Amino acid sequence: MQLTVDDVRQAAARIRPHVHRTPVLTCRALDELCGAEIFFKCENFQKVGAFKMRGATNAVFGLSDAEAARGVATHSSGNHAQALALAARRRGVRAWVVMPANAPEVKRAAVRGYGAEIVPCRPTLAAREAGLQEVVSRTGAHFVHPYDDERIIAGQGTAALELLEDVSALDAVLTPVGGGGLLSGTALVVRALAPGTAVLGAEPERADDAWRSLHAGRIVPVDKADTIADGLRTSLGEKTFPLIQSLVREILTVSEQGIVTAMRLIWERMKIVVEPSAAVPLAALLERRAEVPGPRVGIVLSGGNVDLEHLPWPIARPEEGPARRKP
Amino acid sequence: MQLTVDDVRQAAARIRPHVHRTPVLTCRALDELCGAEIFFKCENFQKVGAFKMRGATNAVFGLSDAEAARGVATHSSGNHAQALALAARRRGVRAWVVMPANAPEVKRAAVRGYGAEIVPCRPTLAAREAGLQEVVSRTGAHFVHPYDDERIIAGQGTAALELLEDVSALDAVLTPVGGGGLLSGTALVVRALAPGTAVLGAEPERADDAWRSLHAGRIVPVDKADTIADGLRTSLGEKTFPLIQSLVREILTVSEQGIVTAMRLIWERMKIVVEPSAAVPLAALLERRAEVPGPRVGIVLSGGNVDLEHLPWPIARPEEGPARRKP
Repeated sequence: MQLTVDDVRQAAARIRPHVHRTPVLTCRALDELCGAEIFFKCENFQKVGAFKMRGATNAVFGLSDAEAARGVATHSSGNHAQALALAARRRGVRAWVVMPANAPEVKRAAVRGYGAEIVPCRPTLAAREAGLQEVVSRTGAHFVHPYDDERIIAGQGTAALELLEDVSALDAVLTPVGGGGLLSGTALVVRALAPGTAVLGAEPERADDAWRSLHAGRIVPVDKADTIADGLRTSLGEKTFPLIQSLVREILTVSEQGIVTAMRLIWERMKIVVEPSAAVPLAALLERRAEVPGPRVGIVLSGGNVDLEHLPWPIARPEEGPARRKP
Repeated sequence: MQLTVDDVRQAAARIRPHVHRTPVLTCRALDELCGAEIFFKCENFQKVGAFKMRGATNAVFGLSDAEAARGVATHSSGNHAQALALAARRRGVRAWVVMPANAPEVKRAAVRGYGAEIVPCRPTLAAREAGLQEVVSRTGAHFVHPYDDERIIAGQGTAALELLEDVSALDAVLTPVGGGGLLSGTALVVRALAPGTAVLGAEPERADDAWRSLHAGRIVPVDKADTIADGLRTSLGEKTFPLIQSLVREILTVSEQGIVTAMRLIWERMKIVVEPSAAVPLAALLERRAEVPGPRVGIVLSGGNVDLEHLPWPIARPEEGPARRKP
């Protein structure tokens, strides 16, 4: 199957009743800091708080009734798990999520809250894959990979489709890159509909597998991935890598401090909540890592799921400030 | 001067080039928690991060050229100070802000950043008023009160004008009430254009001067005001009180814990940053303090200026969570 922008258009029609059309926001203060005119596609406002709802919905609603009836399954402890759970509930089918037994309770509760069944496993990749295999064998559920799947890639591309409808004459579009679903879907759309617009991916220096892969000409798996941007700790896949290789101009890498600075600036100046991964493209602009061919830049703010009790900047102790006074 | 909705309409025309038309957002999760259909007018996205920009802009641009040439002055350490500073800069005139010498540096920097001159004073009401009097005598600047001023009230009412244009058939509109500028301006608009829609104010139990004033039939100044909702620590004024008395159905009071819970829910579920004062109306709905006459409720989210290093919920220490790991 050779994915094209038509697959993304079909995905857009399929998922329309089930996802939000998210707004595009601008912020003069951030424009001045970056020397650019930035258009933020706010997928933090998407259902389940992340663009992942697009791909998961496309995958679940793209199944035949017979396939769907056996349910869907995945291994993930992140936004894809919640998205798949909600998409399955909307289609009225079951969902199983294989998740390490030590995953934070907040994430487990979110997945359960959307009606999926959690299958605990030990916190290793091998255990996850074995757990998934067991679920699929036992239930006949359809496995929906978090990113290395054509329907996922096409679904994630719908955010860029909307962005290009809302904003014209962009010089570049930047997205974060983890497994590459969002970046490859975006690149498909932009190269087809706005061939003069450059597509760039941004990732943490500490999870720079996409940069390494592009420069090596083969998939280089992520090594340690000790980054705050927890959505970007995964490696490129067999389906995402060739798309990125052929359609993406460049991968930009950013420092951990740059991610925190960008995230905090978005909260302070735009008054919106984004997760660390979502701040990575802005960090690349702030750190002047991008050779952007012109001033008009689109950025996909990928999500807003943050544990508000764990924030990556210094927090004053209760006795230091009146805002912490106990009622 | 008897204020009417026409004054608000004139204010809207006057300030249009200088303020944002803010979006109205909805959130199904919060609707379910409240048993209502809530329409949030997002003044946290307004310039300077608060509705105060509307009133200040109306006041500054309502001056004659001769008046404006002498500049404007106020005493405030909050959002009104920043709003007046920015409005003055946009008109190209000077601004002086009398502010306690112990005001947080972040607030002083914001006011200076908009080009106003800070006049320090001791942290008492008497010292503030004396400082203001000195500035006005010395410079001839025009004093713009934070709320007890017809042009301020008319300017704040423009948020409700937009809300009613965007959302029809509201059963109630709720705003926070501190000095009463936002609430009285809102009430003017709603009672004229949607007479079947109830207008309610919401304030902290710990700063319940509006509730006391309405029940006493006279202005009862706020007593201690030891509340996290720092924008609501002021008392009603001679101009706002009669409007509220004649046009507002009820004042709802909420607990401190209720404010924190509502604020955190807005951040988590809506992915937007609001300040404690802005969360007070939602707290009233969550605590079932409101006798709302029907399910469709408009809420003005008054602002989003928060010190991100002082948050009113428990924050894990660095060693407790990976998100705090140093880069």
